[in-house]
Amino acid sequence: MFDIISIKGGLDNVEGFFSGGVNVGLKPEGKNDVAFIRTSEPALVGAIFTSNKFQAAPIKHFKRYGETFLTNFILINSKNANAMTGVEGINDIDEIFSHLPVSALNPIMSSTGVIGCRLNRSKIIKAFELFDFNGKNSNAAANAIMTTDRFKKEICLRVDVKEGGSFHVAAIAKGAGMICPSLATMLCFIATDAKVPQDEMTLLLNEAAEESFNAISVDGDTSTNDTVMLISSGKSGIWDREAFMQALKLLTRELAFLVVKDGEGSRKMVAFEVKNAATLEDAKTAAKTLSNSLLVKTALFGEDPNWGRIASTIGASGVVCDEERLYIKYDDVLVYSPSQKEMNAEVESAANRVMKQESYKICCDLGVGDKSYTAYGCDLGHEYVSINADYRS
Amino acid sequence: MFDIISIKGGLDNVEGFFSGGVNVGLKPEGKNDVAFIRTSEPALVGAIFTSNKFQAAPIKHFKRYGETFLTNFILINSKNANAMTGVEGINDIDEIFSHLPVSALNPIMSSTGVIGCRLNRSKIIKAFELFDFNGKNSNAAANAIMTTDRFKKEICLRVDVKEGGSFHVAAIAKGAGMICPSLATMLCFIATDAKVPQDEMTLLLNEAAEESFNAISVDGDTSTNDTVMLISSGKSGIWDREAFMQALKLLTRELAFLVVKDGEGSRKMVAFEVKNAATLEDAKTAAKTLSNSLLVKTALFGEDPNWGRIASTIGASGVVCDEERLYIKYDDVLVYSPSQKEMNAEVESAANRVMKQESYKICCDLGVGDKSYTAYGCDLGHEYVSINADYRS
Repeated sequence: MFDIISIKGGLDNVEGFFSGGVNVGLKPEGKNDVAFIRTSEPALVGAIFTSNKFQAAPIKHFKRYGETFLTNFILINSKNANAMTGVEGINDIDEIFSHLPVSALNPIMSSTGVIGCRLNRSKIIKAFELFDFNGKNSNAAANAIMTTDRFKKEICLRVDVKEGGSFHVAAIAKGAGMICPSLATMLCFIATDAKVPQDEMTLLLNEAAEESFNAISVDGDTSTNDTVMLISSGKSGIWDREAFMQALKLLTRELAFLVVKDGEGSRKMVAFEVKNAATLEDAKTAAKTLSNSLLVKTALFGEDPNWGRIASTIGASGVVCDEERLYIKYDDVLVYSPSQKEMNAEVESAANRVMKQESYKICCDLGVGDKSYTAYGCDLGHEYVSINADYRS
Repeated sequence: MFDIISIKGGLDNVEGFFSGGVNVGLKPEGKNDVAFIRTSEPALVGAIFTSNKFQAAPIKHFKRYGETFLTNFILINSKNANAMTGVEGINDIDEIFSHLPVSALNPIMSSTGVIGCRLNRSKIIKAFELFDFNGKNSNAAANAIMTTDRFKKEICLRVDVKEGGSFHVAAIAKGAGMICPSLATMLCFIATDAKVPQDEMTLLLNEAAEESFNAISVDGDTSTNDTVMLISSGKSGIWDREAFMQALKLLTRELAFLVVKDGEGSRKMVAFEVKNAATLEDAKTAAKTLSNSLLVKTALFGEDPNWGRIASTIGASGVVCDEERLYIKYDDVLVYSPSQKEMNAEVESAANRVMKQESYKICCDLGVGDKSYTAYGCDLGHEYVSINADYRS
């Protein structure tokens, strides 16, 4: 038995963690652009990285440490992804860390921004003079890692266990419009003081990601820098696998929601539930294809209850389906069934009302099996085009 | 030996063919919306249809005739796809044809437009009173099949063979922004008076499509209605396989170009050449992923020589690649090579000049094999969003 309570303050609540963020001029407008997360003692770390074949320099740098290692320092910058920068990109990280004024065991770097430019080392090193290394400034760190994000993503859950005592799972993240095929980077740093066993770190992280971050991105279509990291100080001394897993799933799912909600220029968040598919693979394929379809996304933007695009996209995804078994609903409004193929005006106006909401569900019952999956997507409007037409400037 | 000459007049040049188009009120603005193509005698027909699992009623109707059959009448309407309309949708076609005032052997229907609405049979039947069944009005037919197309697509090639005599390969087509994942329908009707052997009809069509229509759409991600049809009257009495194949390839490639060029709201056409891939499959995958990437398409729109998005998309496509072997060029401007990872201002401004053109090539040399493939794509701007946000109205 345990209680999970959402509390304010992000990483600041987690025992043994310090963090902060400053501006060193990478973002011209004076906003924070370099952040750190530090632990008082060496901490366990587990990570999931992008499946992109061109992994960025910080990921290659991380992997040099081998399979399992302890760390006490993570440095994060925005505006420059340090990707496609070759061995120089990796050396730049080593050089930056050589100037670090605090003790650093296996320091880790993480970057997001434009691909194909070397880091501005001197500017980033300047951050070391500005950081309050013993401060708890999660809010400043969360702001520093933002790129096209419209709002910062910072969450903390406190888990009170029955036997007494509590532990925390907290995170800062960045990401907006990561929905395939847009490839915008997602970074997520999860800190906990639960006493997670070393050999379970990556396993637990993978399990939580499957139903959260992986549900908002089509496998494989990821940026060069995508990173989800779990760091455990173990300072609470508590290990309750079930409680931790539940908190981790809640946290990662909420973060995935926030990333979709912040989809570049998007105003709507839509859950695409595919029910009664022949296989789980089919359910995932259909749900993710729907959440990625340009025609579906523009119809969401236009609030046009054009279920034909939903059906056509399912048909195009190649999954087992049959128009005589299909049911399509917008929230509770049945817009297509084998016996009611055409929408009447009443149904259309009810569906249109559903689509005026900020978030809703489109459910497709394939009626050919018993497997289900839900993917999350957003609309695509003019703002997306404006944001991405000239991202670098 | 033969000469291929492009001539005006579309289908009107092809012996034994009649065609026309009229308005019956499906398009409110009075533009042509129903077309026919007719042959004086039963003609051979070959067709390639969408791989979408929800094939539209006209495709199911066509398939009822079996593997090989002769036809002398094709009816085409825009504004309504007659898809997801069940058995009623097929019956509607039969009912419409029952009113046809001219002899019709195995009449074929083809539709494009909104999914999920029954055809307006009485309006379409009204076209039979308006058609000039013995007219040669290819231009009117080409106009009638347009939906979001900005310009009509009508081509005729005359092939003069050395032995004397000539035959024609002509086509009308519709399609704009068919580029995956947009799923907009492409219809193409190719008429020839070459004496094509019956058993080669579909074979030849498939071979030509592979390097044309299939290069502008990712396999499988097609609309419910996509159709490419070849109809042969044989009236020229000439069969020269090589000459015919070359003309057919020229014709289909030119039509594919026109469809990309007319991409909904697009202003630019870009060829994505992937060279020296490990396998042909890899070359195709990388080229098509590039032509479909939202981030790439918006960068084309913004004329932003952000090659990082090109690299990242290749990496995300999962093909064998290595940043130390990759070369990326915009036309003749080398923007990335293993020895020149960062763009200097001169390169950037040269690449920007390339991107200001209406059409250009982005070439990615993977340097890991010897297979190549070129896919064609277009930019994505605000007009795409406007067109597709409320397509039905």
